[in-house]
Amino acid sequence: MRLFQFDNAGHAAIGVAVSGAEFIDLSNVEPSLPRDLQTLLSVPGAIERARAAVAQGPVRRPISDVKFLPLIARPNAIWALALNFKRHIEETGLTTSTEHPHVFLRMPASIVAHNEALLCPPSEIARAFDYEGELAVVIGRGGRHVPPDKALDHVAGLTCFNEGSVREYQSHNRQFGLGKNFERSGSCGPWLVTPDEVTDYKSARLVTRLDGVVRQDSSLSDLLFDVERVISYLSSGYELRVGDIIAMGTPGASPLADPNDVGNDLSKQFGRIKVKGLVHMRPGSTVEVEISGIGTLRNPIVADQSREYRAS
Amino acid sequence: MRLFQFDNAGHAAIGVAVSGAEFIDLSNVEPSLPRDLQTLLSVPGAIERARAAVAQGPVRRPISDVKFLPLIARPNAIWALALNFKRHIEETGLTTSTEHPHVFLRMPASIVAHNEALLCPPSEIARAFDYEGELAVVIGRGGRHVPPDKALDHVAGLTCFNEGSVREYQSHNRQFGLGKNFERSGSCGPWLVTPDEVTDYKSARLVTRLDGVVRQDSSLSDLLFDVERVISYLSSGYELRVGDIIAMGTPGASPLADPNDVGNDLSKQFGRIKVKGLVHMRPGSTVEVEISGIGTLRNPIVADQSREYRAS
Repeated sequence: MRLFQFDNAGHAAIGVAVSGAEFIDLSNVEPSLPRDLQTLLSVPGAIERARAAVAQGPVRRPISDVKFLPLIARPNAIWALALNFKRHIEETGLTTSTEHPHVFLRMPASIVAHNEALLCPPSEIARAFDYEGELAVVIGRGGRHVPPDKALDHVAGLTCFNEGSVREYQSHNRQFGLGKNFERSGSCGPWLVTPDEVTDYKSARLVTRLDGVVRQDSSLSDLLFDVERVISYLSSGYELRVGDIIAMGTPGASPLADPNDVGNDLSKQFGRIKVKGLVHMRPGSTVEVEISGIGTLRNPIVADQSREYRAS
Repeated sequence: MRLFQFDNAGHAAIGVAVSGAEFIDLSNVEPSLPRDLQTLLSVPGAIERARAAVAQGPVRRPISDVKFLPLIARPNAIWALALNFKRHIEETGLTTSTEHPHVFLRMPASIVAHNEALLCPPSEIARAFDYEGELAVVIGRGGRHVPPDKALDHVAGLTCFNEGSVREYQSHNRQFGLGKNFERSGSCGPWLVTPDEVTDYKSARLVTRLDGVVRQDSSLSDLLFDVERVISYLSSGYELRVGDIIAMGTPGASPLADPNDVGNDLSKQFGRIKVKGLVHMRPGSTVEVEISGIGTLRNPIVADQSREYRAS
């Protein structure tokens, strides 16, 4: 099942995608179920009830009509992995532990839904605003001290993530801090794909496109720490909660097919680390993260407001 | 005014401390005001109405009777500063930028209220569970691109913070990650002191005690980046929101008066960085962070549950 959250005349509702183009409004077919995905995931048996209701074949609506909302409105935690793909470790020249996952936090305000605009910082603030296509898992069952062989029991589903990063800020100091948490700089979605639809996530392929050009293309088998080990590690100190999101890290840049590709021109790259194939995100562009068997997360990029002081 | 959040027969209520020992239940004297501090701070004029109501001199209750709740139930962000005191930079031997504040995130689940227990990890998981006494500011007015000379206009008040850290995990990799976000490992409170009561926060003195022994003792004038610069920096990428908490970093360990002090015995310290005067927090101990003119945040330390797998 592919579950998403959408805006139904100003209220959150849950949609179930039944093809690439159509969906069922769960609140129409099973009105007693919660209207937000985070609550739905926490109600025992709710996923099965949703599945049964959808199987009745009720009215379908075109997905193109809906405004997507963030999959999880207020996750308790958005964990993210740094340097978790071998090619990305090599291309950055950075070091990471091979014993413990390299984790940090993002806050919900830094993440938008599918189709929502990512905000590109004004160039006086930063110019290296980069995509990071990633697989993300959403926790469906809380827990602590979860052994790796039980970890997938805690996963409600899989989705796509763009871990948009402002490189200059990320390099201001040793902790990534603000560079990974700019306002509306990343995205997650479009939907949560339940595990029964993904037999082996490690054989999935992740492709990131900027304006249609492939910029990342990797098998998820190249992960340094897999989902099982990351969940086990996090739960040794943190109690997993329903709706938590874990973004699994980004692969490296893709080899360039076209010798004239702008990604070859390192003089057009900013920030401390320059990588062949990388092209920064700019206003007017569109970025896509596609994972085979899961879906495509798409976001236009718009200019953030000027540097003017605003109080609210 | 000193505002705190307490449990009033299962519901959140706002208390106003009127002496070290007594308080007024704001919901009794001004029932139309919000019952939670985060909402109160976001209502224009609410602080002034609270002040006027309290000035009528209504019934006082003993503070010792109340169960404190977290000051801000669900802050959008808890920013924390690393290496922001000169003595702490020297004692750790770590480097930091003198140009940009060194920031990272904590999540609300890692922070408890005044008097609540901090959870000490089982020793098989980690043994270096350390206090970090800090000043924290709470944002009272949202904003973006705030210049330093306007930054204090965005502060609702000041409080104490114990940025409890699990050192072994903090050193697992370059990002602090889980080491700064163990379940219930830090605290914030007891109350929010409005800025009119603190004429110059930089002349305040911060003292951290473990079981009554002074372990940190520093003037806040020793801050590398002050509140004004930190707020300005964060707001260059992040939109400040009412209820955000910023923990300003911890000073170094205190010089040892007693030559037989256990803090001199570095063989009793664990983790990568050993510091004279440091004593790890253990179950059965009590830790206090006192800031002159603000208050004392006190927490007992209890053992976290065993490493046994638990699903919820």
